[in-house]
Amino acid sequence: MIDLHLIGIGTGNPDHLTREAIRVLNGADLLLVPQKGDDKADLADLRRMICAQVLEHDVPIVGFDVPTRAADRPYLDAVNDWHDAIAECWRAKIAEHLPRGGHVGLMVWGDPSLYDSSLRIAARLPAAGLPMRTHVVPGITSLQVLTAAHGIALSRLAGPVTITTGRRLRDTGWPDGAERVAVMLDNGGAFEVLEGDDYFIWWGAYLGMAAQMLISGPLRNVAGEILARRAQARAAQGWIMDIYLIERRRARCHEPAA
Amino acid sequence: MIDLHLIGIGTGNPDHLTREAIRVLNGADLLLVPQKGDDKADLADLRRMICAQVLEHDVPIVGFDVPTRAADRPYLDAVNDWHDAIAECWRAKIAEHLPRGGHVGLMVWGDPSLYDSSLRIAARLPAAGLPMRTHVVPGITSLQVLTAAHGIALSRLAGPVTITTGRRLRDTGWPDGAERVAVMLDNGGAFEVLEGDDYFIWWGAYLGMAAQMLISGPLRNVAGEILARRAQARAAQGWIMDIYLIERRRARCHEPAA
Repeated sequence: MIDLHLIGIGTGNPDHLTREAIRVLNGADLLLVPQKGDDKADLADLRRMICAQVLEHDVPIVGFDVPTRAADRPYLDAVNDWHDAIAECWRAKIAEHLPRGGHVGLMVWGDPSLYDSSLRIAARLPAAGLPMRTHVVPGITSLQVLTAAHGIALSRLAGPVTITTGRRLRDTGWPDGAERVAVMLDNGGAFEVLEGDDYFIWWGAYLGMAAQMLISGPLRNVAGEILARRAQARAAQGWIMDIYLIERRRARCHEPAA
Repeated sequence: MIDLHLIGIGTGNPDHLTREAIRVLNGADLLLVPQKGDDKADLADLRRMICAQVLEHDVPIVGFDVPTRAADRPYLDAVNDWHDAIAECWRAKIAEHLPRGGHVGLMVWGDPSLYDSSLRIAARLPAAGLPMRTHVVPGITSLQVLTAAHGIALSRLAGPVTITTGRRLRDTGWPDGAERVAVMLDNGGAFEVLEGDDYFIWWGAYLGMAAQMLISGPLRNVAGEILARRAQARAAQGWIMDIYLIERRRARCHEPAA
């Protein structure tokens, strides 16, 4: 029997690790680390650095090459096939290195619950012939680091918040009735669909890391600066991760004076 | 000058503490702990237990009595006055114990960004005559512990999530266009406004603690069990904190066969 631990590690700052994450990493018999060739966005070095900092004894660390997602197919189909392929990578590495079972750890960027595929991939393994229990260790999300860095709450007082993706914001615009919207997985500039003077944005990239960037202000005023600095940083670093929170402020100046 | 650190401590399990939280607690010159008389929901004992576990040297720990919120006034007015009164408590304790400035730590349940008032209270202090900088240390939220305990993601694949309050769900029903809704600060049973067979709930109470309770299933089937067990537990423990995530599943059986 395999116990698979999906361990949230926060956003790249080893100080985001919880005591639980450190304990579970140390209790693992095998740690799997995803690799994407020369792609720095795989953050394999970061995961190995975290291991070097917190492991109190030798735990085998095994890399695996992450399959590529088909770009020429409908999004959901491509993602499903891609998850199947990753599940097969996990299964093969676990079967090779832990033929008699044990505890496997996977370090998950942020938290396994928030726009991360690890739980869906893990759910494929029993059907692929690997008897397994899955355990989740919560980690600090980029959304929490964003609000902490800007010194703001996620919601207005007792108000609602919608969390969504850049793709969805681009396709369907501002969600009906939303006061604040947090946007993740944007490959750049989905907020350009929001027109007018009513929006305020808090943006951050490389949150929690030395390269952290923060910009906030009325969306109309800062959208161009965000896009320009995002493009520069991506070119300079070879990768970028960024998220943002937008508030829709009711227009106050357009009502008739009477 | 005062540096005020709002330190997310997770939901009562000392293993939720991050390395950053432990470092900042140890770097404080004063730790303020809220107390509500005999009300066990103040969790003062829990905060003192966390300090006993993680402090590596003596840090002064000072309790303060949390003022009561007026129950007979409109909600937002009552909350505003209440926050003013709490800010005055903080100011007085800080002025008394750190007349020459220093680092003050406040342990915040969950994360300071999510339905917590500490940031709004802290924002009142400079105007009250206390020059101050505020810093936020993110902590694990109950929402993350809920999804981890149930072994689920917060959203469906690339789908949106709305986070809201029990009060708002009760007043305005299911948010337009929402797929999943996370409900916090419900004093019991706001989900009763949702009728029909389309809803699935993942509920949890005392998340991360020894008394943790979990129930999941079609809302129609488990709503009664949740309300009954919630009432029993509240009576037995003297307090309860619970949250839930609800998914609206599109009805599949009501379409004409043709």
